[in-house]
Amino acid sequence: MTIEFGIASLTEHVRTTADGRTVTAPERVQQLIDLGVRADQLGLDNFALGEHHSPDFAVSSPAVVLAAIGARTEHITLGTAVTVLSALDPVRVFEDFATLDQTSSGRAEVTVGRGAFIEPFTIFGIPVEEYDAVFDEKLALLLRLRNNETLSWRGRFRSPLVDAEIGPRPAQAVLPIWVGVGGSPESAARAGRLGLPMIFGSLGLPMAQVKTLADIYREAGEHAGHGDRLRLGFGAHFFAGATAAESRAVFPFYRDFLGPKRPGRGGMVVTRAHFDAGFAPQSTRYIGTTTEIIDKLGALHELIRFDRFQALLDWGGLPPNLVDDALSRLATEVAPALRNRS
Amino acid sequence: MTIEFGIASLTEHVRTTADGRTVTAPERVQQLIDLGVRADQLGLDNFALGEHHSPDFAVSSPAVVLAAIGARTEHITLGTAVTVLSALDPVRVFEDFATLDQTSSGRAEVTVGRGAFIEPFTIFGIPVEEYDAVFDEKLALLLRLRNNETLSWRGRFRSPLVDAEIGPRPAQAVLPIWVGVGGSPESAARAGRLGLPMIFGSLGLPMAQVKTLADIYREAGEHAGHGDRLRLGFGAHFFAGATAAESRAVFPFYRDFLGPKRPGRGGMVVTRAHFDAGFAPQSTRYIGTTTEIIDKLGALHELIRFDRFQALLDWGGLPPNLVDDALSRLATEVAPALRNRS
Repeated sequence: MTIEFGIASLTEHVRTTADGRTVTAPERVQQLIDLGVRADQLGLDNFALGEHHSPDFAVSSPAVVLAAIGARTEHITLGTAVTVLSALDPVRVFEDFATLDQTSSGRAEVTVGRGAFIEPFTIFGIPVEEYDAVFDEKLALLLRLRNNETLSWRGRFRSPLVDAEIGPRPAQAVLPIWVGVGGSPESAARAGRLGLPMIFGSLGLPMAQVKTLADIYREAGEHAGHGDRLRLGFGAHFFAGATAAESRAVFPFYRDFLGPKRPGRGGMVVTRAHFDAGFAPQSTRYIGTTTEIIDKLGALHELIRFDRFQALLDWGGLPPNLVDDALSRLATEVAPALRNRS
Repeated sequence: MTIEFGIASLTEHVRTTADGRTVTAPERVQQLIDLGVRADQLGLDNFALGEHHSPDFAVSSPAVVLAAIGARTEHITLGTAVTVLSALDPVRVFEDFATLDQTSSGRAEVTVGRGAFIEPFTIFGIPVEEYDAVFDEKLALLLRLRNNETLSWRGRFRSPLVDAEIGPRPAQAVLPIWVGVGGSPESAARAGRLGLPMIFGSLGLPMAQVKTLADIYREAGEHAGHGDRLRLGFGAHFFAGATAAESRAVFPFYRDFLGPKRPGRGGMVVTRAHFDAGFAPQSTRYIGTTTEIIDKLGALHELIRFDRFQALLDWGGLPPNLVDDALSRLATEVAPALRNRS
């Protein structure tokens, strides 16, 4: 089995970029569509979009944008990073992605997560104090919807279903549902117990910590008898430059990618020192030359044997030609060098 | 102002057609996408898809299918017939269609209705006994979402919003919101009072009855001071044949279009006598030769001065070549003959 290579965008909307450009909301959405089309042309395996309920991001309804990309592509799978299942109705999520699966001739995937921001909880009236219970219930319902054409169901966070036929059915026999995990051991264990594929999004954690989470996932999955169904994905910040100097020069764009998008808003403070620390061999951030990245990502694969790598290379404010360069290097240099590792 | 001509499909899925063909769910969705693309190529003004939560129809999430069509078209507007607003969350409806508006560079529309079927109420846990109150509240919220980038709101059928920023904002300055009405005078008066464009979907009602509804709409609108904002759309069953005989021969397909899609399911019983009655000059059904249709639709326009005509010519089981013939005649013969009537 070869390793899959793809990209994900959280759809950050940096309105004024570090090099002084202005990016409007329609331009940002068009960038995302073009990115998906280009990733398909370059032969990458999958493309995923974030879902955010805040003006700091461009996309709140990824299935709609993915359908537009699906209409202009042939092979790439279309997924999310992540669908904030806690905030949504699993029935409507299933309808949206089964419909996407129909329009894209079987290329839809859903990656569900609990969500890292407060906005979706407040906007959709979800009790944050029930954070775990809400997600458990909604994921269980989504899995039942996937596996049953007709179902009856009763729970705490949604009205009951009685002999309901939820449609359409996806074009694929089974709609792929991944669990997106941000670093919580409990979430990794849950994904393993359920026998679901898991993608782990790292913000540059040390490799040893990533290994711990991978082990928790696989042990929980094997203990539950799902050993042969487990698949591990790994997502990370990525930029492949023409030279070491070019890759070091993206600092201001990386800072604005993670920082507050508007004055007074939340975000991470990324200092130059923090940025520089990410070049350490043990960090799971992949900014550098192609050679540096192949070495570092190869070492991670040696350690955790991931089945899928998802590069976060679209940072909102990064100049489009640099995004495209990084994308090309991922598809034509990094992926070919690592794809057949076992 | 010219009259707009478009088409709508309710997305009926007739699995075994009157001429013995089998239509799978993926084929049906592909037909709908092709239909939208073809309507754009032929220069029609708008395309609308129904939303249904039942396996008798192909589409439950029209924004997703419309995004796929939008990616392959340039000019046609992309709307619904109708969005079952009563069953959905207005916040999510706004997010979906604002996103569609972004991906399609400003071609999204929403036509909201109360829904004609029970399934969405049971599936989404909406109290049917509050049919009117639910719709009123949700429509008011949707309009507030359209008109305000930030809002606080409190109602009975959804959790409150506090200084919520719902996004993305649409690409158009104002997302068009139409009200779809099936024949209820109260609904027509509500649309007029709100100063919203209204589309009236007729199942072949007598012209006099259509006139009454148009008058109610316009009087309510003018009384509320919205005289210059009113726009009246009219949707009807349509088939334009090469000859009178060809147009009379579509009876079995029309019967299956309106009839139960599966044994034991709901639907209308269409007898040959009912079908034949629709050819009467006073009926608002448009099956016939191009000449017959131009005369009959011209007479309706004389009576109610509609601003938009929406042809329901995609009946699920009707052979695709006949659908395409009817579509071509609508775009190249009927629309040019009537478009500039005043």
